[in-house]
Amino acid sequence: MKKTVAVLHGDGVGQEVTEAAVKVLQSVGRRFDHTFEVEEGLIGGIAIDETGDPLPKETLEVCEKSDAVLLGAVGGPKWDQNPSALRPEKGLLGIRKHFGLFANLRPVKAVKGMSEASPLKDHLSKDVDMMIVRELTGGLYFGEPKRKTHNGAVDSLTYSRAEIERIVEQGFELARLRKGKVTSVDKANVLETSKLWREVVEEKKAHYPDVEVEHLLVDAAAMKLITQPASFDVVVTENLFGDILSDEASVLTGSLGMLPSASIRSDGFGLYEPVHGSAPDIAGMNIANPSAAILSVAMMLKYSFGMETEASAVETAVYSVFDDGYCTTDVQKAGHRVLSTSAFADKVIEE
Amino acid sequence: MKKTVAVLHGDGVGQEVTEAAVKVLQSVGRRFDHTFEVEEGLIGGIAIDETGDPLPKETLEVCEKSDAVLLGAVGGPKWDQNPSALRPEKGLLGIRKHFGLFANLRPVKAVKGMSEASPLKDHLSKDVDMMIVRELTGGLYFGEPKRKTHNGAVDSLTYSRAEIERIVEQGFELARLRKGKVTSVDKANVLETSKLWREVVEEKKAHYPDVEVEHLLVDAAAMKLITQPASFDVVVTENLFGDILSDEASVLTGSLGMLPSASIRSDGFGLYEPVHGSAPDIAGMNIANPSAAILSVAMMLKYSFGMETEASAVETAVYSVFDDGYCTTDVQKAGHRVLSTSAFADKVIEE
Ligand SMILES: CC(C)[C@H](C(=O)O)[C@@H](O)C(=O)O
Ligand SMILES: CC(C)[C@H](C(=O)O)[C@@H](O)C(=O)O
Repeated sequence: MKKTVAVLHGDGVGQEVTEAAVKVLQSVGRRFDHTFEVEEGLIGGIAIDETGDPLPKETLEVCEKSDAVLLGAVGGPKWDQNPSALRPEKGLLGIRKHFGLFANLRPVKAVKGMSEASPLKDHLSKDVDMMIVRELTGGLYFGEPKRKTHNGAVDSLTYSRAEIERIVEQGFELARLRKGKVTSVDKANVLETSKLWREVVEEKKAHYPDVEVEHLLVDAAAMKLITQPASFDVVVTENLFGDILSDEASVLTGSLGMLPSASIRSDGFGLYEPVHGSAPDIAGMNIANPSAAILSVAMMLKYSFGMETEASAVETAVYSVFDDGYCTTDVQKAGHRVLSTSAFADKVIEE
Repeated sequence: MKKTVAVLHGDGVGQEVTEAAVKVLQSVGRRFDHTFEVEEGLIGGIAIDETGDPLPKETLEVCEKSDAVLLGAVGGPKWDQNPSALRPEKGLLGIRKHFGLFANLRPVKAVKGMSEASPLKDHLSKDVDMMIVRELTGGLYFGEPKRKTHNGAVDSLTYSRAEIERIVEQGFELARLRKGKVTSVDKANVLETSKLWREVVEEKKAHYPDVEVEHLLVDAAAMKLITQPASFDVVVTENLFGDILSDEASVLTGSLGMLPSASIRSDGFGLYEPVHGSAPDIAGMNIANPSAAILSVAMMLKYSFGMETEASAVETAVYSVFDDGYCTTDVQKAGHRVLSTSAFADKVIEE
């Protein structure tokens, strides 16, 4: 197959980890006889510096001609005081909305031998394997009215039934391919949008008799993620709850530096990015762990290109490199040999 | 002094823990020469059963004639399928709004020797001592429009500058009496209400040069609560973020069964309740730990009655009973002697 991938490295370590991930992608191409054409584009702080726009028109064009997008990271102290239209994250919000990437998939999985880095006691963190499915283009992020005056401000949490249906379906479909359980998170005892959300989940449930469904209020979910993290399989929730809970979940296993994410829509087009940020303090030093970016490429292979075998090969390779006793400066394991970002990628390719 | 306290025991273990707490309150009266007059009222599920209303007019009248309210807990499976106007928690939301209890104080403190029950590794949980200050009468809980049709729904996140100012001031004042640090939590990179919130915090900061201020985005806060819980002192945030984060924080130390809360306004009137719920599974068995209700009485003495000495005496007594090796069936410690709810209260009174 031939696929075109837009690579937007963005800021900070975004550059080096996407380079490493692209190397791995190209090696998958050679090994499995695919052609991956890579086109670069600007986004985030670097785009502001070079074009005055966190999401330049040229970048959207590059993405439009591609089958999927690989993003590094956006942001850094340099742009923290910018007015809100000129902030790096505007690029991220813009690209999600522009392409209608309504489903954000955030897997969180314990990595063997990394429980030392987990804040949780070992018996709680060791079997964690969940996927948070976050609605990404609706809710408080985009609802109108949304404005601020000197004396007050308003944001609007709006959802249409159709918006809820498609993300809930996504959750059920993924659960089917995993452990068969969906936890739907809402605040139905207070919010009207949550009542509608729960109604939709109850309706969809009928079409997935093989999937177990649990409803949790968002406050209870925030507790249970900590006290019983291994009890979750697929968690499906609205945009802001998903933002909070997926970040909460990301620190549970000590493997934050290795977590990938996907933001997809129904036709397979998607944007893939590591969960970790731009880490400006270690940028350009060739020491950042590229696993999250490489695993993001694995998600791309799976969700955008339908290349399941290739995706598993990449995943297995990443975990094997860890198992073989290698790590990087920022994601360390006692007794492991420290590799540079690029050398780590080479090891993954070797595997 | 003479004070009147409205006691609304509500559902489940609410009854037995408020009884235990009232016993302690009366013993404080004898010991420090105060008169506490207690008047009872119905709220929650039991109020629905007996009057058809989760917050009957008579209850509001009892509270209006009182100087403070002690609440047990509301809710239970019996009322879970009720239509939303007939749900126990409507009583809670109603009483907060009716009395303008805009500040919810949720202390979370590690209890010596209870780290076993904490999901976190010991070195993370042992020094936790924070106070979450949650705005309680605004935001998404009450904003209009708030409605649902078959095809969509909307909730409104509204805040006036004045609403933000008073809760932020509350946060600063409390920080002054504690460790001198305020963490303000918002989502200023996405929400207009959060931009206003951050603006107000920056303005107020000037009046509290002795208080250190940190701004955190709500997603980052959800992570940091787990990875560095001991770094927090006072956390101040809006209603829904506070709902999520205070519940998240409540499980960090393993002492959830002992956490009190206060919902207050500026004139000292307030409602005090344990954080734990109605625990229908153990209700009526006289085994629930009454510490959270007793510590809620301590908060009442301090925040509503200005009785600092009396409040500390109660707090010290509760922790001493634990230190002396006593516990209850629901909040157990290895090697401790198990007492009933009422016997535990008697021990506290003895101390
Ligand atoms: C940068 C920010 C706007 C963004 C969000 O809130 O969606 C980020 O936190 C994320 O989760 O990708
Ligand atoms: C019962 C519910 C409406 C309530 C809330 O969300 O405020 C509860 O979760 C709380 O925190 O006191």
